[in-house]
Amino acid sequence: MILVSMTLSPTERSTVRRGKHRAVTDRAALYAVLDAGLICHLAFVADGAPVVLPTGYGRDGNTLYLHGSTGASSLRVLGAGADVCVGVTLLDGVVYARAVFHNSVNYRSAVVHGRPSAITEPGRKLHALRVITEHLAPGSWSHARQPTKRELAKTAVFALDLTEAAVKIRTGPPVDEDEDVAEARAWAGVLPLRRSWGEIEPCPLLPDGTPTPPHVRHRD
Amino acid sequence: MILVSMTLSPTERSTVRRGKHRAVTDRAALYAVLDAGLICHLAFVADGAPVVLPTGYGRDGNTLYLHGSTGASSLRVLGAGADVCVGVTLLDGVVYARAVFHNSVNYRSAVVHGRPSAITEPGRKLHALRVITEHLAPGSWSHARQPTKRELAKTAVFALDLTEAAVKIRTGPPVDEDEDVAEARAWAGVLPLRRSWGEIEPCPLLPDGTPTPPHVRHRD
Repeated sequence: MILVSMTLSPTERSTVRRGKHRAVTDRAALYAVLDAGLICHLAFVADGAPVVLPTGYGRDGNTLYLHGSTGASSLRVLGAGADVCVGVTLLDGVVYARAVFHNSVNYRSAVVHGRPSAITEPGRKLHALRVITEHLAPGSWSHARQPTKRELAKTAVFALDLTEAAVKIRTGPPVDEDEDVAEARAWAGVLPLRRSWGEIEPCPLLPDGTPTPPHVRHRD
Repeated sequence: MILVSMTLSPTERSTVRRGKHRAVTDRAALYAVLDAGLICHLAFVADGAPVVLPTGYGRDGNTLYLHGSTGASSLRVLGAGADVCVGVTLLDGVVYARAVFHNSVNYRSAVVHGRPSAITEPGRKLHALRVITEHLAPGSWSHARQPTKRELAKTAVFALDLTEAAVKIRTGPPVDEDEDVAEARAWAGVLPLRRSWGEIEPCPLLPDGTPTPPHVRHRD
């Protein structure tokens, strides 16, 4: 098993101890997890209680962008400068151990802590929306119609700095007790989980014969 | 598009208005989402700030079970009777619209609010661990070694009532502005996302020739 656990906050001594080279590697791992995910789970505190919601996002450099309808109550909380926590998790497999206590999952996970700032300047807002759009649906920004002023006004956009973040990655076979391995009392191994694109479903309202564009047809 | 949004809290008037039949349907939808997911995102408040972590779970009737190492700080927060919010999301596809403003995802999502209670009675604890084990790795409980007293002592288990919950489901094609549809300005449709099991990876420490048991080989 390889279990990697990294805290990327520069305010923590652990980061300093690991040195610069490791810190660069860690940041690359964080970016890789965020780029591989499609949606995040956004947590915030509303009326003193935790709330978690799935939502889209996009990354540009060391910034994570979030967006939503200006009418959503969750977005009003963010606009007030509240702390948030964002989790992105990729589940890579189920780990079957010889003892149920050691059952586990293989996964890549990023958890980001911070206080998002609202983006209101039109140029920056458009850039952020482009990043979010291209994350979820690469190629869409240049293919589809871009936002009108009215659509922009209905969309709230936030930037979250990626400085305070943690990455955890587990790979490899189960780790069992020596006695259980020696006794060979049960099967053990990993059942990998794969994510793949299914058969494209064109919108029924498209004119007959509309070709599916390459950015959809050949999406990785 | 079918966008279903349900709040299952009996304390809300909306539930009463929808009547009994609908309430039963909603609860079935909640259970279906929870049963289809593999991991959840658990949110809680620590030192006044939100935290979200991916973790395993299991459902039995109207109870969601959570567990973790007794040493984990997150579990200590839960043990203190704090509010949590649990999100389970299944991403079913990327929705490409004619306007990026209408890009979306097809998904099934459950969000549960509540205050978990610690389970300490050995019989109930064992039952909860069985539920969690069978959720992640069906067939494991009877195949692999069950927990020792020491392993049980190292595991904290919590029960969360599923009474306060919301389910959201989006299916179907994009919903665009009439003008964009009429102008046929861009391709639109859905790229479904599929989840499937990959090729089984037996543990390298298994004796040669150990067969893969049916509960792994034929997992749905």
